[in-house]
Amino acid sequence: VPAARALARTILMPATALLAIDWGTTSARAYRMSGAGEVLGIRESPLGIQQIRDGAFAAALRALQGDWNDIAAPRIASGMIGSRQGWIEAPYLDCPAGRDDLARSLATAPDGSLAIVAGVRYRDAEGIPDVMRGEETQIVGALADGTGETLAILPGTHSKWAVVRGGRIEQFATFMTGEVFAVLKDHSILGRMMAADGAAANDEGFRRGVRAARRAGVPGALLHRLFGTRTLALAGKLETGAVADYLSGLLIGSEIDAGVEWARHCGVAADRATLIGASALCTRYAVALAEAGVAVEAAPAAAAARGLWAIATRAGLVR
Amino acid sequence: VPAARALARTILMPATALLAIDWGTTSARAYRMSGAGEVLGIRESPLGIQQIRDGAFAAALRALQGDWNDIAAPRIASGMIGSRQGWIEAPYLDCPAGRDDLARSLATAPDGSLAIVAGVRYRDAEGIPDVMRGEETQIVGALADGTGETLAILPGTHSKWAVVRGGRIEQFATFMTGEVFAVLKDHSILGRMMAADGAAANDEGFRRGVRAARRAGVPGALLHRLFGTRTLALAGKLETGAVADYLSGLLIGSEIDAGVEWARHCGVAADRATLIGASALCTRYAVALAEAGVAVEAAPAAAAARGLWAIATRAGLVR
Repeated sequence: VPAARALARTILMPATALLAIDWGTTSARAYRMSGAGEVLGIRESPLGIQQIRDGAFAAALRALQGDWNDIAAPRIASGMIGSRQGWIEAPYLDCPAGRDDLARSLATAPDGSLAIVAGVRYRDAEGIPDVMRGEETQIVGALADGTGETLAILPGTHSKWAVVRGGRIEQFATFMTGEVFAVLKDHSILGRMMAADGAAANDEGFRRGVRAARRAGVPGALLHRLFGTRTLALAGKLETGAVADYLSGLLIGSEIDAGVEWARHCGVAADRATLIGASALCTRYAVALAEAGVAVEAAPAAAAARGLWAIATRAGLVR
Repeated sequence: VPAARALARTILMPATALLAIDWGTTSARAYRMSGAGEVLGIRESPLGIQQIRDGAFAAALRALQGDWNDIAAPRIASGMIGSRQGWIEAPYLDCPAGRDDLARSLATAPDGSLAIVAGVRYRDAEGIPDVMRGEETQIVGALADGTGETLAILPGTHSKWAVVRGGRIEQFATFMTGEVFAVLKDHSILGRMMAADGAAANDEGFRRGVRAARRAGVPGALLHRLFGTRTLALAGKLETGAVADYLSGLLIGSEIDAGVEWARHCGVAADRATLIGASALCTRYAVALAEAGVAVEAAPAAAAARGLWAIATRAGLVR
């Protein structure tokens, strides 16, 4: 009977062709993938690189893999694991960079267990650099055939806007939207007027914030408009339960206004964009982008896994 | 001999005509003033309204006054002491508001010990309110004859820009520049790259930040440019000791860019401005305003005391 079970497993379960890991600052997610590039299983761990002490990356990888440790398949990872604070630094590729460039530039973990995808760097006209690690792989995964053109938006702590042409990231810009929201919520006078965490999202408050960020004919910039969060609440024109969402809308709306202007400067119409990332945050961005007249297409789920698969395939890790 | 001393004091020391108090969120400062409106003495206390528990404002006033408690002279205060969290709420005056409007709208402390100056409120075209408490008095004090015209800039945690015509504040806008700097420095990823507190100011870093905020031809907004603080430091193009000043320059430069645009929208040329406030911060703003082509005139010292004197005089408290 055990032999029959093993046989059944061999027949019914597709073999693992790749273990693909999205390894960031605060968490790690591993995907077990078939030879056809399908996701067969997912394992998650809070062992982001920030949580790993004394360079214990190999132990963290074992913990993340659990009962996948014995699987004989190539491993590949993207994200902050390839940063200076990660396992080994995978140097940045300069733009333009796409699937093939990334496949040619893989670093290898010191113990040989893992290929690591490089980050991507862009220098603007005045030489101020911008960097991404992990998002380049998600962008590759979001392109249907690896050669598409799109304006990609990846909402997050540090949101990225990227102009993609011929499957390569040509230019990109980072916006500190998520982190600025978090520090203002937790540490500024604005946070003191907010309802406790866990309150229901206030969609109308969010939309009001987005519109306040985009008001035409009323000059002033974000540093001024932020204060409106306080004064509206003080004046009883914004209820406690809507303050956090108003602030979120104000910041996301400001990012979108600046991002659309930036995209046009890059020669992109910015009338449509591909949203990549966690669904709740992407839904917020979709609402705000609609206010700005930008049509949105959602990237397929598990864009990181798809991107790692595409890069591993082009690198010859998977055959 | 004691009688002679008392006589000498009476002859040599001008009598106190007013005790004027600038009473804010984190500290209080009292000025003893002569019948000619000169400052004869200053006392300071950390008893800002945030430090006062259980409504113990009268005790805080006694502590602030020390050996001035027995002086028989009228008292007047401006600032957050007149807010909802203060001793008694002195309702906001709507713009335009100047010396005479403020003199007609004084509130009185519950124990009758103190006249309290109202705050000022402005509603923009879309009804978003802005408020000030204390700054209106400094602006009055900065005007030579109480009837001047100027663009007044009061740098601070919440910087104020005010258009003053005929001695009255017509419009104003608040920028959360100082608070955003503080929360990013103390709580964001940008702070982690900074030299420890107490490092010498880096003037060149500050100027680079100001220029980065004002770069023409490179679209993007503050949420994007903030990230440049990190990437320049990561790339070794901004030394640790200059990171805080670069961020300060970026934020102050953004405020000035938006403030100049705002002033023009109010019909003011914004080619010159009056700077009101603490000298170190005003010096920073003067450097940044010069980069933006705005000529600066410094307000006289103790603008709050001068303003309280002007308001008290018009209110008939001082004769």
